[in-house]
Amino acid sequence: MQGTVLYGPGDLRFEERDLPAITMPTDAVIRIVATCVCGSDLWPYRGLQATAVPTPMGHEYCGIVEDVGSAVRSVKPGQFVIGSFFASDNTCPHCHAGYQTSCQQKEFVGGAQAPFLRVPLADGTLVATPEMPSDELIPSLLALSDVMGTGWFAAEAANVKPGATVAVVGDGAVGLLGALSAKLMGAKRIIAMSRHDSRQKLAREFGATDIVTERGDEGVARIKDMTNGIGADSVLECVGTQESMLQAIRSIRPGGSVGYVGVPHGVGLKGEELFFTHVHLHGGPAPVRRFLPKLIEQVWDRKINPGKVFDLTLPLDQVAEGYRAMDERRAIKTLLRP
Amino acid sequence: MQGTVLYGPGDLRFEERDLPAITMPTDAVIRIVATCVCGSDLWPYRGLQATAVPTPMGHEYCGIVEDVGSAVRSVKPGQFVIGSFFASDNTCPHCHAGYQTSCQQKEFVGGAQAPFLRVPLADGTLVATPEMPSDELIPSLLALSDVMGTGWFAAEAANVKPGATVAVVGDGAVGLLGALSAKLMGAKRIIAMSRHDSRQKLAREFGATDIVTERGDEGVARIKDMTNGIGADSVLECVGTQESMLQAIRSIRPGGSVGYVGVPHGVGLKGEELFFTHVHLHGGPAPVRRFLPKLIEQVWDRKINPGKVFDLTLPLDQVAEGYRAMDERRAIKTLLRP
Repeated sequence: MQGTVLYGPGDLRFEERDLPAITMPTDAVIRIVATCVCGSDLWPYRGLQATAVPTPMGHEYCGIVEDVGSAVRSVKPGQFVIGSFFASDNTCPHCHAGYQTSCQQKEFVGGAQAPFLRVPLADGTLVATPEMPSDELIPSLLALSDVMGTGWFAAEAANVKPGATVAVVGDGAVGLLGALSAKLMGAKRIIAMSRHDSRQKLAREFGATDIVTERGDEGVARIKDMTNGIGADSVLECVGTQESMLQAIRSIRPGGSVGYVGVPHGVGLKGEELFFTHVHLHGGPAPVRRFLPKLIEQVWDRKINPGKVFDLTLPLDQVAEGYRAMDERRAIKTLLRP
Repeated sequence: MQGTVLYGPGDLRFEERDLPAITMPTDAVIRIVATCVCGSDLWPYRGLQATAVPTPMGHEYCGIVEDVGSAVRSVKPGQFVIGSFFASDNTCPHCHAGYQTSCQQKEFVGGAQAPFLRVPLADGTLVATPEMPSDELIPSLLALSDVMGTGWFAAEAANVKPGATVAVVGDGAVGLLGALSAKLMGAKRIIAMSRHDSRQKLAREFGATDIVTERGDEGVARIKDMTNGIGADSVLECVGTQESMLQAIRSIRPGGSVGYVGVPHGVGLKGEELFFTHVHLHGGPAPVRRFLPKLIEQVWDRKINPGKVFDLTLPLDQVAEGYRAMDERRAIKTLLRP
């Protein structure tokens, strides 16, 4: 088969690779129905994160089970499944506590931008849909593999409550779906921080009530202005830079909560500032697996349509253009179909 | 009157000062019945924190209302009252949210190591006891002014739940009362990290089930060992150094909570480490005022005896010896009586 491999900054190749096979009794191999490019794929693509190369790329996926190992019980060939970017056994104490991305057996799932994918710990990792989905559901089901679950976790980590005032830092797919999640959790006011017309539009569609274009200290000042000097109850940090993190922390009210899901790159926080802001801070790699059953149900029942974040769909062999479009911010998120 | 003033590292004087007077209609002046030395007083005393000098010292107090300003409604002369180290109006949005130490009108209350004290925002700050307390209750009532409320906040910020495994970093008065608070909240296992015999003993009296003498990475390893490699559900950070903060963060289970109340001195946290530990982080200057009514009731009903942390009682004019005893760790906490 041909799959996507990163050889260095900007050097993405779609090239011949071995067909994945069952290597452990707990594995499954799935035939990819749809995959996509993640904001976090852009860090190594841009050379902003050291990565061992060549690296098979892609960690968001849905597809049809092709084969399972001898120990797999809960999924079977022919089922349509969705999984998280971290494989997890879903039985260890950390999984039971709802932190499957800290599973004692966790394993990163890489190489999903390809026609086939090996998924370790299939019983714990994969969740099947009730039946074969219709084609129009595919983008939204794919979104559950990472971005929707990550946006949901950001809102949950930020302790979004009914009636709350929520700010969202970051207008990538995760931030946009964070706005949707805050809406679903009953937030009254959702302030999307965005400078891009198409993203502002989608944020509003998902439930944002206000748009703020300022960033950094000016962004903080705007949030304070809009809340009578009090600050937001909850802030979703969906970027991962020093500026975005400080902006999030400084925008909350004392005792408010920042949920951060942007993988931090070079972020350093001073204990004294955290102390005197009275911030609640929680985040990390989203335990998407925890949310999959509930979110699949919501998509299946047409209650949410997170797949709207895909504004570019390409055949898998044009993956390089998919990265370029996101890198140049011509696309919010690229869906790829083998 | 004579009061306590810090002139520089180690240079503490008990000297003539003006009698405090009502300067704002919302003020009260109280006659101090008991005050004490705080662990945080030792930072400037040791020269580890730059402080404008001369500085009147002391911020923990209980006493009898001597005089009130024309706008004061809820306390009156003759009442026995306790207040927090931050004056707060108890009416602003931050107070309503339970963060009185971030009150929009907050004002630090300094100079309590003296026979009389001016307390701003008396209606919001002071809470009266049901009647004049008997003498044996004084130490425990005094403890509510800071250390007990701060230990309680540490446990609450660390999200202590019934049945939880809790570790306490720091065996000062706040850490010890953090252990008591965790016990009151129903923790099953309370691990006190202490190397001092008398403190270990008091920790056990307050409810600690285990003692760990190791610190830093070794302390973390011990906590992991004791919890089957999982980590503690909640950790109370009651010191404020880089080592203690990292020890706390690294001792929790993924998704666990660190409540930090030690004023951070030179603490820097890396975003990436916080991210991958899945820690909940919350803390700050304890909103003691929020807890005062409930904790006064507990002391009044002889359900708790936080005053046990005072293992040295001196006349106020021997305040310098009180500091020395704590500095040299001969005393856990010094109570001073005018």
